Formats: sequence, C-alpha cells, structure tokens
Amino acid sequence: MTTEMHPQRWGDPAAAVALPESARGLVELAFGDVRETPATDRELPELPALDESLLDALRTVVGAEHVLTDAATRALRTRGKSTPDLLRARAGDLTDAPDVVVRPATQAEVEALVALAVEHHLALVPFGGGTSVTGGLVARREGFAGVVSLDLVRLDRLVAVDTESMTATLEPGLRGPQAEALLAAHGLTLGHFPQSYQHASIGGFAATRSSGQSSAGYGRFDSLVVGLTVVTPSGVLTLGSAPATAAGPDLRQLVLGSEGTLGVITSVTVRVRPVPVTRVYDGWRWPSFAAGSDAMRTLAQAGLLPTVIRLSDETETAINLADPESIGAGGDAGCLMVVGHEGEPDVVAARRAAVAAVLTRLGGTDLGEEPGRAWEQGRFHAPYLRDALLDVGVLVETLETATFWSNRQRLYDAVRAALTGALGEGALVLCHVSHVYETGCSLYFTVAARQAEDPLEQWAAAKAAASDAIIAAGATITHHHAIGTDHKPWFAREIGPVGVQVLRAVKNSLDPTGVLNPGVLVP
Amino acid sequence: MTTEMHPQRWGDPAAAVALPESARGLVELAFGDVRETPATDRELPELPALDESLLDALRTVVGAEHVLTDAATRALRTRGKSTPDLLRARAGDLTDAPDVVVRPATQAEVEALVALAVEHHLALVPFGGGTSVTGGLVARREGFAGVVSLDLVRLDRLVAVDTESMTATLEPGLRGPQAEALLAAHGLTLGHFPQSYQHASIGGFAATRSSGQSSAGYGRFDSLVVGLTVVTPSGVLTLGSAPATAAGPDLRQLVLGSEGTLGVITSVTVRVRPVPVTRVYDGWRWPSFAAGSDAMRTLAQAGLLPTVIRLSDETETAINLADPESIGAGGDAGCLMVVGHEGEPDVVAARRAAVAAVLTRLGGTDLGEEPGRAWEQGRFHAPYLRDALLDVGVLVETLETATFWSNRQRLYDAVRAALTGALGEGALVLCHVSHVYETGCSLYFTVAARQAEDPLEQWAAAKAAASDAIIAAGATITHHHAIGTDHKPWFAREIGPVGVQVLRAVKNSLDPTGVLNPGVLVP
Repeated sequence: MTTEMHPQRWGDPAAAVALPESARGLVELAFGDVRETPATDRELPELPALDESLLDALRTVVGAEHVLTDAATRALRTRGKSTPDLLRARAGDLTDAPDVVVRPATQAEVEALVALAVEHHLALVPFGGGTSVTGGLVARREGFAGVVSLDLVRLDRLVAVDTESMTATLEPGLRGPQAEALLAAHGLTLGHFPQSYQHASIGGFAATRSSGQSSAGYGRFDSLVVGLTVVTPSGVLTLGSAPATAAGPDLRQLVLGSEGTLGVITSVTVRVRPVPVTRVYDGWRWPSFAAGSDAMRTLAQAGLLPTVIRLSDETETAINLADPESIGAGGDAGCLMVVGHEGEPDVVAARRAAVAAVLTRLGGTDLGEEPGRAWEQGRFHAPYLRDALLDVGVLVETLETATFWSNRQRLYDAVRAALTGALGEGALVLCHVSHVYETGCSLYFTVAARQAEDPLEQWAAAKAAASDAIIAAGATITHHHAIGTDHKPWFAREIGPVGVQVLRAVKNSLDPTGVLNPGVLVP
Repeated sequence: MTTEMHPQRWGDPAAAVALPESARGLVELAFGDVRETPATDRELPELPALDESLLDALRTVVGAEHVLTDAATRALRTRGKSTPDLLRARAGDLTDAPDVVVRPATQAEVEALVALAVEHHLALVPFGGGTSVTGGLVARREGFAGVVSLDLVRLDRLVAVDTESMTATLEPGLRGPQAEALLAAHGLTLGHFPQSYQHASIGGFAATRSSGQSSAGYGRFDSLVVGLTVVTPSGVLTLGSAPATAAGPDLRQLVLGSEGTLGVITSVTVRVRPVPVTRVYDGWRWPSFAAGSDAMRTLAQAGLLPTVIRLSDETETAINLADPESIGAGGDAGCLMVVGHEGEPDVVAARRAAVAAVLTRLGGTDLGEEPGRAWEQGRFHAPYLRDALLDVGVLVETLETATFWSNRQRLYDAVRAALTGALGEGALVLCHVSHVYETGCSLYFTVAARQAEDPLEQWAAAKAAASDAIIAAGATITHHHAIGTDHKPWFAREIGPVGVQVLRAVKNSLDPTGVLNPGVLVP
C-alpha cells in the first residue's frame, strides 16, 4: 500500500517542512508582516451516505472491505492538490467529497463497476494518486444518484516485462516509486519523474499526458506508451499492436489525455530503459533568460538534448526556488540552468562534454555539480513549501504552458503581465523553462502574493487573466497539468468548436450516459 | 505543375525501365518461360458525365477550367497504384473512374466544395499524388449523386517558414520533390523520403501516416507534424498550439491517418531540419537476418539510430532487389544492411564511427560505401520494376507490417508461410526490415509469383492469407501503407469493435452525411 497524502496538504505528512527561516525573511520583505494562517484540524463533518442498496451492489463486486464510506477516507478523495483545492480543504469544505470510495483489484471488477455505474447512474471518478492540480477530480454531482471515487490503488501489478522489446505492462494504481521499484528488480526504469512523482500513479500519468523532469531524455509519458487497455461503458478497448502504425488515426492518443472521461485505464504498456549507471547534474549560469533559452533551443535542434534540462528566469534564480533550503539566501545574478545526463558512463561522459562545449560556446558559465545536486535533492519538495507558505498568509500557485520557440518571449511577457496585473505589482512571478523540444518549449510559472481577504477569488481572477493571455498568445493552456475542470473554457478556445464537437462525439459514443468523471475535460 | 503518372503504370512515363536482362534471366529461372503480357494501349471508353447542373455548381467555385471531365484526366484519377489497381488499369477497367476532377486553389474553395458535396450528396475523394497502394482512392459510388475527385494539386504553396522554431507550413498538394525544393531555398529539408516520394503529396503523407526511408533519423511523418488545418463538413478544425501539450486527447493524431474520410487537410505545419551537409550510406553484411535485426535492435535501444537503416533477409539479399540494375547478378551470402548518416560532417563522422563500432562488435562486416550507393541510386525505382515484371507475366506486390522485437521472428515466419501457402512453393517471398524503433520494427515483404489465369483473384487470396497471419500474430495490418479499402476487415480486427465504434462516431460527427471518401478506412 502507498502512503496516503494529508487531506489538506501536499504529500506525506511525515515529510512536511516548516518554512525555512530564510524564506520567512523573504516573505516579510516581499509581503510585509508574517500572518499565521495555519490549516486548523477540524472534526470531519457527518457526510451523507449513499443509498444502502447501492452500497450493497458495490460490495457484491469488490467485497465489503473495499467499499468505504467513512469521512476520513472520503476526505482524502476530495478534489486534488491545486491551491484552490487546498484552500477549500483548509477551510473544512468537503462539499465535493465522494459518497463512497470503491477499490477494485482486477479489470473484471472495474468492468462490473462501470456497468453498475451506468445501471444506477452513478458518477464514477477514477482516482489514482489524487495529485491533480486542475480540478480533475471534481466531478459534477447534479443529476447523478451519487458520486463514486474509483480508487485504483489495488491495481498495482507489474503485469509483464519484455526485455527484448524493452516494454513493460503496468497497472494504473501503481505510484511512481512503486513502479520504479518493480522495474528496478529487472534492471529497468520508466524514467518518468514529474514533481508529483512520489504520489502520482501510472494511470494518472497516462490520463493526463504527464511530462516529467527527465522527459528531455526519456520522453513525455504519452511518447512512452505503446499500448493501453481501457474499460468503457461501451466495452473494453485494447490498443497497441506495434511501436508505430499507419492503421488509421492513433486511438491511443485519444485515450491519453482523456482524464477518466472516456474509460478507466486498466493497464498501460510502456517503453522502458535500463537503470542508468551514472547520473550527473550540472549547473550553468546564463546572463539572461533569453540567452539561456536560446542555448536550450540550440541543443534541442542539434539533437543534443540531455536527460534533464531546465532554466530558471532571473527572478526564479534570485529566489532560488530550485533549492528550498536556500530560498532567500541570495544567489548569483543571471539565470540558473540545470543540465543532467543519465546512462552508461562512457555515453554520459561523451554527451556531457558535447553539451558543455555547445553551452560554453554560447556564453554559459559552468557552475559544476553543486547547483545540480541541490536541484536533485529538492526536486520533489516545492509542493511542501507551498503548504508552508499558505500557513503564513502567502498565496502560491503554479501554472504552465508551451509554445513554439519564436513565440516564447511574447508568451512570457504576456503571462507575467497578466499575473502582475491581476495580483498587483507586489506579486512575485517566477518562471522556468521546464521542457524543451526541437520546435519549442514549455514555460512554468510560480506566483506568490499576499493572500487577499478571499484568496479563492483572488486566485480565480489571476488564473483567468493568465489563461486569457496564454490563449491570446496562441499557446496551449497546459503543457503537462491537463484540463480538469479549471482549464475547460480555455481548452474550448484552444481546440475550437469543431474540436469540441469531436471530443463530445467520442465521449457520447463511449460513455453515452456520461457517468465517467462528469464535468471534467469535455467542454 | 507536377508530372502526371502513367495511368496504367507507376511514375513518370519517361522514367520507365525495361526489365534488365539479369532480371529476365531470373524470371525464367524462377517461373519458367517469359510470357509477354504488356498493358495494351486502349482507346479510352466514353465515360458517363456528371449532371450538367452539378458541373455548373462546381465551376462556380473553382472556375470552368478547373472542372475536368475528359476521359484522360479521369483515367489518371482512377484508383491508386497497388498491383490490383494496375492489373485493372492494364485491363482497361475504368469502372472506378471519378465523374469529374475538380482542382481548388485555396482553402476557401475547398470549403465551398465540401459544402457543395454535402448539399448535392456527392462523394468527395481528396486526391494528392495518387500513390495509394491500399485502395485509398476507390470510393463507394452507390447512393451518391456522383464521385468527385478533389485534386489538391493547386494547393502547392509553402505558406510559412519559421527558422527559429524550425517549422514550415505546407499546402497538401505539394509533391515530395516540390516541397523539398521550396524548403531547400531556405536551407531546410523535411527529410521524408518514402518510396513514393517522387509523386506522393504532403497531404497524403499526413492522411496516411507515411513513413520514409530516412525516418529513423528524421522521424515518421506523424511525428513531424505539429499542426494541421482540416476542412470538414462540420467546419474547419485548426490544431497545433504547441510542440507538445496535455490539453486533452491529441486531436492531431485523429486527423493523421484519417485518409480523407474526416476532412480535407488544407495545410500541414511540420518540423524541418537543416539540409544535411554530408550524406553517407554504408553497406554491412550479416550472417543471418536474425543477427542483423538484433544489431538494429541494439542500435535503437542504445539511442544510436542512424538516419537510414534497412536490412534485407537472405532471399532479398540474394535477389538484390535493393539494386534493380544488378538483379539476379548474384551477390554475397548473408544479409545486406544499409546504414546511412546525414548531417554536419563532424556529427556524421562521430555517429558513423560509433555505429560502426557497435555493428562490428556484433558480428557485422563493413562492405564500404558501394552497396549504400547502389541502394541510394535505386531507392525510388522498385515500383518501375514491378511494371516491367507485370509485362512478362510475373505478379509482384508488396505488403508490410510492424511488431515488437520479441514477436518479429514469429511474424516473419507466419507471413512467409501464408504467402507461400497461397501462391505455391514457387513463389518468391523477400523481406526487409524497413523501419526500426526502440521497441520493435516493421517487416516489408515483396512477393513474386507466376501470374495465374486470374491474377486479381490470385493476389486477393494471398493478401488475405498474409493479412490473417499478421493479425493472428498480434501485429499491425500496416506500418506505413495505410488502410484504404483493402485493409478494412483486418483493421477492424486490430482495433476491435470499440475502436471501430469510436472511429465511426468521429466520422459521423464530422461528416454526418458520409460524403468524404466513402467506403475508405472506416470499417
């Protein structure tokens, strides 16, 4: 079993951190006096129960011990981990709690549960790691006999390994570290390490088109997937007969990113790699964000991408968010780039030298391994820090987008202006390039501001302004956080009315009564 | 304007070749006396004309000079270039001729034509290079007021080049060489060179998920596409806001491979690369097909794929099909691999050395550049040779599939057995690995047999046997030839009833009256 996250905070409660002193100083400097605004432990309210006959029907499928109605379990399946989600949870708002949590262990049980949901018109919300930051777990309740959280945690097997083809078939409930541990026993790795890695699930990676910190080297999750099995109300869809095919449209790419609205993913076959023998992460300093991102472009277009590459802008570098322990401790001027190489020692050495030669030629300064090591140590910590900042009256949230290289400066300026316009000049807006491609890159923004009277409203206005700016700049509303409920209006603008029509047609075909994650994704 | 192909043969009539003497000798050896079975020049039959009022409506949109009803033009838009297509054309069978050929020049004209087709219930067949080998241009006629060939030849512009993002926007009617010439003026290349390259079109590459001889280095066409514009009966779909996105299912991947059944592609934005300074193609000899393909697997999984890599099996190596000039001239034992590198001289040199080290270690013998040069010279010639063989009573056709590495031997054995079983022990079955991936590869079969009394029936039986074997082996029915009409029954088995249902739902949503390429792709 996996560690449950805290219902009001990110991650493992045992791993929670207090705000470092340096960061506290920075908060005072940026936003004035520190106000303590801790989440208060509240007694869980009485949550209305699902009709007993429906519970019995669910028990028939998975056994009574896997049909859970207690408030604590349901609180832990309420919404995801966006800042608005946390603000609501901290305020004790459990209005979005599911009526019941059901834990199937096999595909056959999932099929039976989907059939039951259709029969009784129950909203079914597939639940993996619960790490959504875009409202992907906030299903519409109206019109349904109840909301069932379909917790996939027991679908946690490594079903097959093919070391000749270098593929592995994984069940959706496996958390990142579980999957890596199972693969490591075969000397293999998936190489997928998003910031949510420690809690997010294989099914979630597929359902949201996740992208990880090492995706420059290992590939985005959608590019790792060669096959899928999906249980839909219209039957089981099994896809993936070859690494590549010209057999019509690629239906795998319809399931990837479908966020539980078209079916329940019950297995994913992915490309795997040998566990790297060597890992080395270097720091590089650049005189400007433009110079550093131009260097990234050069590497990508030369086919010289390292395993990990990210570049913080001037503000993020100064704040040093990449290393929470040293936040506010100052730092060098310019922009910090982290460049990581993983693999066989000789390949890593050759690659590292080739990349270093290009970066030096383009004006980068090699900072050695210390900044890379600091990044590596803190790579999954930022969400914990967000909680610590929420505790002292600071609103913190992230958002991300992607565009083609020639449009990146326009996009960067537009989003920064939108966030500052909405949150005031006092807001801190940090940005890094989190992923790069031959034709473009993603921009990942972190924003902090003093919490207003109504921080939910405050953030909603800022998020809307930033999203408007993203779409106006012709960029995508999300590079790796997915649509959920939060991005729907802008998603509709991004794909246009004909795109929305296609998506609705697919939804109506596979899930004609709309029981799967209603209200999510499909505009 | 582009060179029209011969209505009964492949390619440029001026480039047609007589059967080399060596090949003639081989034919006699393999199949007995050479029978001359030339295609006879026939007077074109009177083809029934479309209703004059409909012609007038079409003329209103594109101008009278671009609404063509003469038999010669229509004969050239009849079917594609599969062997059955050629056999029918050689027999003077023009039953599948379109009623009219219409040549729009702009997206607005395409939109108007699609609207007209819906209004008058005309079947609309998007026509690019006419190189389909799977019946992709044989639309269903029943129930329609007529069949219109929508010739995209005038949509032939390079619309935009973005040298910072390294993307280009191309119109669908551009033939491979035209697109390369336009890009070369900017120092760029698409790097997409399927065997059909000299005649196939950009729109066709996208609509069929084409893969080229250099796709190991440049990527399959579907991986080159970052954006698309598609005119559907339900409106215009414009996709591609970023290199990668988590904004829902990737709708671009629905359009790619849609074979003109969902909409008419009016522009494609693709990733481009600098024109390579150096190109070098080496030959390598392997003791067996298994040893050679294992070496390919090693390269792919080590991230060391060259730009071009292909491996002929023992029979294909012996026949030396890769070099039509020397067919039957004997050759070395074992299996021939062609390994090509393209790019900057220093990168090519380093890559070539690294690949050579691996291949040598694995037991390959370096044959130097001569075999690679021979392959390069003949790389687009095989279809001309097919015509020459059809002229002497030899049935020749190709088919291809792909699978994961661990399944390749089973697939290879099964398809060979099926073809030999259907065509008799005297049939020649050649195979090469045409494309490789980290997780698997394609197998491309060429088959030759003495023509039976009814070669159409003879081939239909062999094709069905091979296709059954492919699906039974769990492989894909096509790696890069697409579905057309010929692969539909096996495509339905490959994606299953739920996959078929999804595809139909998308089709019904975008093209509710079914006027776009009816009978193609969608089972």
